[in-house]
Amino acid sequence: MSDLPLYRDPAAKPAERVDDLLARMTPAEKGQQLQMLDRSWGDGESFLRDGRFDPATAAANLGPDGHGSLSQRQDDASPHAYAESSNAVQRYLAEHTRLGIPALFIGETLHGLVGPAGTTVFPQAIGLAASWNPELLEQVGLATAREARAVGTHVGLSPVLDVCRDPRWGRLEETYGEDPFLVSRLGVAMVRGLQGGDGAGPGLVATVKHFAGHGAPQGGRDSAPSGHGREFLREFALPPFEAAVREAGAGGVMAAYSDWCYVPCNASHELLTEILRDEWGFGGFVIEDMGAIGFLHTAHAVAADTADAAVQALRAGVDQSFASALGPPVVDAVRAGVLDEEVLDRAVRRVLRTKVELGLFEDPYVDATTADAVCDSPEHRALAREAARQSVVLLQNDGTLPLRADLGTIAVIGPNAGVAETGDYSGRNPDLVTPLAGIGARAGTGTAVLYTEGCPVVDQPPDDAGIAAAARIAARADVAVVVVGGSAATSGEIRDAGELDLTGRQDELIRAVHATGTPVVLVHIGGRPNTMEWAFDHVAAAVAAWNPGEEGGSALADVLFGDVAPSGKLPVQWPAATAQLPSTYDYMHTGRDERGRYVNTPVAPRFPFGHGLSYTTFEYGEVGVEVGQDVTVTVEVTNTGDRDGVEVAQLYLRDLVASLKRPMRQLKAFRRVTLRAGEARRVVFTLSRDDLAFWNAAGERVVEPGEFAVMVGGDSTTTNEARFDLP
Amino acid sequence: MSDLPLYRDPAAKPAERVDDLLARMTPAEKGQQLQMLDRSWGDGESFLRDGRFDPATAAANLGPDGHGSLSQRQDDASPHAYAESSNAVQRYLAEHTRLGIPALFIGETLHGLVGPAGTTVFPQAIGLAASWNPELLEQVGLATAREARAVGTHVGLSPVLDVCRDPRWGRLEETYGEDPFLVSRLGVAMVRGLQGGDGAGPGLVATVKHFAGHGAPQGGRDSAPSGHGREFLREFALPPFEAAVREAGAGGVMAAYSDWCYVPCNASHELLTEILRDEWGFGGFVIEDMGAIGFLHTAHAVAADTADAAVQALRAGVDQSFASALGPPVVDAVRAGVLDEEVLDRAVRRVLRTKVELGLFEDPYVDATTADAVCDSPEHRALAREAARQSVVLLQNDGTLPLRADLGTIAVIGPNAGVAETGDYSGRNPDLVTPLAGIGARAGTGTAVLYTEGCPVVDQPPDDAGIAAAARIAARADVAVVVVGGSAATSGEIRDAGELDLTGRQDELIRAVHATGTPVVLVHIGGRPNTMEWAFDHVAAAVAAWNPGEEGGSALADVLFGDVAPSGKLPVQWPAATAQLPSTYDYMHTGRDERGRYVNTPVAPRFPFGHGLSYTTFEYGEVGVEVGQDVTVTVEVTNTGDRDGVEVAQLYLRDLVASLKRPMRQLKAFRRVTLRAGEARRVVFTLSRDDLAFWNAAGERVVEPGEFAVMVGGDSTTTNEARFDLP
Repeated sequence: MSDLPLYRDPAAKPAERVDDLLARMTPAEKGQQLQMLDRSWGDGESFLRDGRFDPATAAANLGPDGHGSLSQRQDDASPHAYAESSNAVQRYLAEHTRLGIPALFIGETLHGLVGPAGTTVFPQAIGLAASWNPELLEQVGLATAREARAVGTHVGLSPVLDVCRDPRWGRLEETYGEDPFLVSRLGVAMVRGLQGGDGAGPGLVATVKHFAGHGAPQGGRDSAPSGHGREFLREFALPPFEAAVREAGAGGVMAAYSDWCYVPCNASHELLTEILRDEWGFGGFVIEDMGAIGFLHTAHAVAADTADAAVQALRAGVDQSFASALGPPVVDAVRAGVLDEEVLDRAVRRVLRTKVELGLFEDPYVDATTADAVCDSPEHRALAREAARQSVVLLQNDGTLPLRADLGTIAVIGPNAGVAETGDYSGRNPDLVTPLAGIGARAGTGTAVLYTEGCPVVDQPPDDAGIAAAARIAARADVAVVVVGGSAATSGEIRDAGELDLTGRQDELIRAVHATGTPVVLVHIGGRPNTMEWAFDHVAAAVAAWNPGEEGGSALADVLFGDVAPSGKLPVQWPAATAQLPSTYDYMHTGRDERGRYVNTPVAPRFPFGHGLSYTTFEYGEVGVEVGQDVTVTVEVTNTGDRDGVEVAQLYLRDLVASLKRPMRQLKAFRRVTLRAGEARRVVFTLSRDDLAFWNAAGERVVEPGEFAVMVGGDSTTTNEARFDLP
Repeated sequence: MSDLPLYRDPAAKPAERVDDLLARMTPAEKGQQLQMLDRSWGDGESFLRDGRFDPATAAANLGPDGHGSLSQRQDDASPHAYAESSNAVQRYLAEHTRLGIPALFIGETLHGLVGPAGTTVFPQAIGLAASWNPELLEQVGLATAREARAVGTHVGLSPVLDVCRDPRWGRLEETYGEDPFLVSRLGVAMVRGLQGGDGAGPGLVATVKHFAGHGAPQGGRDSAPSGHGREFLREFALPPFEAAVREAGAGGVMAAYSDWCYVPCNASHELLTEILRDEWGFGGFVIEDMGAIGFLHTAHAVAADTADAAVQALRAGVDQSFASALGPPVVDAVRAGVLDEEVLDRAVRRVLRTKVELGLFEDPYVDATTADAVCDSPEHRALAREAARQSVVLLQNDGTLPLRADLGTIAVIGPNAGVAETGDYSGRNPDLVTPLAGIGARAGTGTAVLYTEGCPVVDQPPDDAGIAAAARIAARADVAVVVVGGSAATSGEIRDAGELDLTGRQDELIRAVHATGTPVVLVHIGGRPNTMEWAFDHVAAAVAAWNPGEEGGSALADVLFGDVAPSGKLPVQWPAATAQLPSTYDYMHTGRDERGRYVNTPVAPRFPFGHGLSYTTFEYGEVGVEVGQDVTVTVEVTNTGDRDGVEVAQLYLRDLVASLKRPMRQLKAFRRVTLRAGEARRVVFTLSRDDLAFWNAAGERVVEPGEFAVMVGGDSTTTNEARFDLP
């Protein structure tokens, strides 16, 4: 041990190791620790030539001073080869840079790892959110971390904790929905899972994003300023990030493209330092969103050039680049005397500290031989199926669902029936189960399954042949499952939508199938709700399956045939019209009418936040409230049908008089309850004082005494209410 | 003079008179000075019985302690009778209350007086704004004040200085549009006119409203909270109010139904006292919007009951009620010791001061015999016609306009052709010129004018007969003028719209007329733009005439036949789709793409802010900039066509690098220029330092040195740019 420099001594304290190393570093080496080598897009450099690591390419790209991090790219390589490539980079850095500082490998892990071919593709985030099941998300996070760490990745750029306030925004699908509390609970669980589930597996550094206020862009236009003030941001944007940092100890934060009160997030000292570090005690590192530092100059126009942008970002609290130049320009600024070296050192320390805590100085390598077995293991595939089952929301049902096992003919129709739409930031996996395949596998041998696409999601076919074909097979069937929705062309990053009506000729397709008289089961697959009022008014049943992942088709069949009770609940309200946006369930009373009204358009959504049916029915008893140090809320939930089922009981709170306007109701607790037919169970919720608190006009978090209403039921419109006084 | 109490001595200083009177008042009398007797709605008490003043009714309503004010009601009475009724009330107060304090009569004066029958109905505010002509608005204000003062009204509840950021909001029509600078310039002019035009006429107390932030409700839903922060509000909501107070000396301010950072405006000390009085030096009185104090309890839920609401409002800075109980509960609070009497006195002083300054203690009466001649005088009617001419915006034209004088047959078609839609807050005037009447009067004797309604604005007729009839007459005509748009059912207060497409079957009507092959001149009449992309893609010409007032039909004919050159410019952008809202020309760059983009909907409007054609064409020369104490911008504008015309030259500014995100461009100056065919004129704009300033992150108004771009042209998309450095 005595030969080891202090920074390599695993017995030394991390802070001392970091200081020791920092003292040995040249300014250029420090600067490089703030730099990511971005390989994430297009033909990003893999350092592989004919499948083998190429030292010359590595030398050209990595340079003599190393890099703080490398982004991991989507690749066709196997997990095994991918892991070996990661190891080769670490070996190169160990052997060919002066101090041998290992790199952080940073990858996308939104709903499974994006990296080598053959990683598990879990349901998209919005689908996971529809489960309202934090334990499930923790398991998904843990499985994702296992795969990521197996191939050498250390940092996952997830979860997305943006609270999506407008479904036009293309990144709705990456979020856990419109409610800050739901996003908080699911976000905390996902961070815990990604970071190793309290020791249950190898952990990543979870990087929560996009910090902050990114989920409410004006008109749903990505990264557009909202003009929202601190009051809005405290109430509707910050809570999930605060919970992820304080409760789950998230190790990374990504600063958003958007702005914080007209200061770009990547330049906001208030956000990245005063709130994040000084108030919340965050000790990890902050990374720019890809290219965001450069955008301080080219987009936001708060920096005179890219060097100025880098200095502003560093001063605000960004520690790691992602495609922008951060390290070299700030080193130049230090040399020029315009930036204190301590500001540079502060950022370098945070990056080095992460590497020390990950144990990379002891062992930067992974056992590549296990990678193939870990990635998309049977356990993970089973988890993907279970997650997809829980993500399906039964929107409406006249009794057509579940499908009878003895159906003679099922027509499976629609552009999303024969493909597996997995959503943005999906890993690459050749084994994806489409809705058609899932239904086909489940249908009895006596059941004929007919299929036609009908029409594409987006394009307008030149003739009616596809729709006519759909009507023909529907006419021959006992039931028509029509699978419509969105695609990678209509939803995802920088795929914001204006009009939310179904694209292409999908609405016509539904009408044509319905006109045959065959009962229609509508399945919506996509990253965001589409408005389809005619369809909802006419079809027999409808489910929302989001982007359900690699086992989506199997899980959908499980639900449609009743092998599994549907239990998903909407994490966003389902709009009745684009013209009513933005609109959320947790609106505040206007200055006159409660929710406002339009002369020609409904104000209420088609389906409310929290909505989701089962194949049985649930009744809620009277709400009991006991006020002590905490507030205990009790309600009996009864399965009043003749099938087993799962209900998500939801508790909403309203502060009846407060010093500021408050939402008419806010989700404050929820519980998944499994109930056999006829079974009743008492559900107890405990609200802490903090659950009753809000940020007042003075910018203080306060609990104001007075009367509150608490409402418990199966969706956000429940009127099952009790009131209590808080002394 | 010696017998007079000091408060009645016109030679004494106003403040001393007010203090003297205050010292004589009982708490109940003070409380009543904060009360308005609201008669503005429904069968509000006129005190007339069979056309004569009824003292018993007055006694029952006015009470022994009088009232601070009475609202004026829309009435069928003549101006003469109305004025006599006002006098009778004042006489009652003088003779039957202890101190004989006269009342303020408060009326609506948005675009002409709302009061007796037969007042001038000017174009709706949004139409006035389309003139981009402050001098015109000052004249309209002055004429309105003359009519109002002639019937005994002292306070006008206008202008509306809300900057409308979403055309779904039903009150767009009451505003001067989406831009804070345009609203400021027009607002200052209107306040000056209403307040007597620097001595040109008798003045009202102009009450600017709705203070503040009321023009950007979420989803266009009236009075809905926006979540906007102080940065947004300083930039996009406050400037017109500040200008009206500081530059024009507006004597009244109405506090809005909506909220200021989640504090209802009527309870916001920051807004009503710190900003309005302490920062801007406002010395007039603040009035609640109708019932808004009560809504602190029943809608905003920041007050435990209506008494609490009254105390909160008074403390914040509200001085006068409008339908809520303000005076009596605050007097109770003073008696109970929970409110300092000085807070009550402060409000009473402001009301009394206004009365002293109006000279009401010397003479509260008007000469009723002049009222009939003043109201809707020929001069005012001519002004209404001129205002309407200048409000017409020529949106597009293939040369069909101006109409030839020798047309054989004109078909006038559409639901807004045979009616005069004057907009919300219109006075009552039996002599309204419809588009059909205006066109009919102007058409030559050799021209046949055919007319049919085609379809209603809103209702769906049971059959196609109306549309078929329209197509039949169109087929027989040389040109079809199709007059569509909105009505009192689709636009106005609490008539927010969701979807902005033309309502009812109006779009079908346009298509059917177009299908005949007869050239279509589309005339849009309504309080807000409607999206009608198909129509704009197909019709020969289109004009927006807003709600053009009593002479609207005449003015429209003046423009259509080319007797007057169209000169209006859009004060709001004309959206291409509801799904792109909210959207304004002065957007800020997003964090990535300039304006954002949708996969399926345009982001740009159909017609930009500032757009408006003429029957001639204008060219702009190079922009010259000279930087001294001020910045002088010079451009030559040339009428390059063969007809005389009027152009509104517009100057937009962009701060190229600033410490906060700034709009991509902002209107900073404009000038109406009349140019004969072929004439050129040098236009000089002077920008002060304040024109280059903005509110920074520290909440200070600053000018930051650096580079600016200045763009001068005929609409907000001009690229005719020069740059300059501000040292």
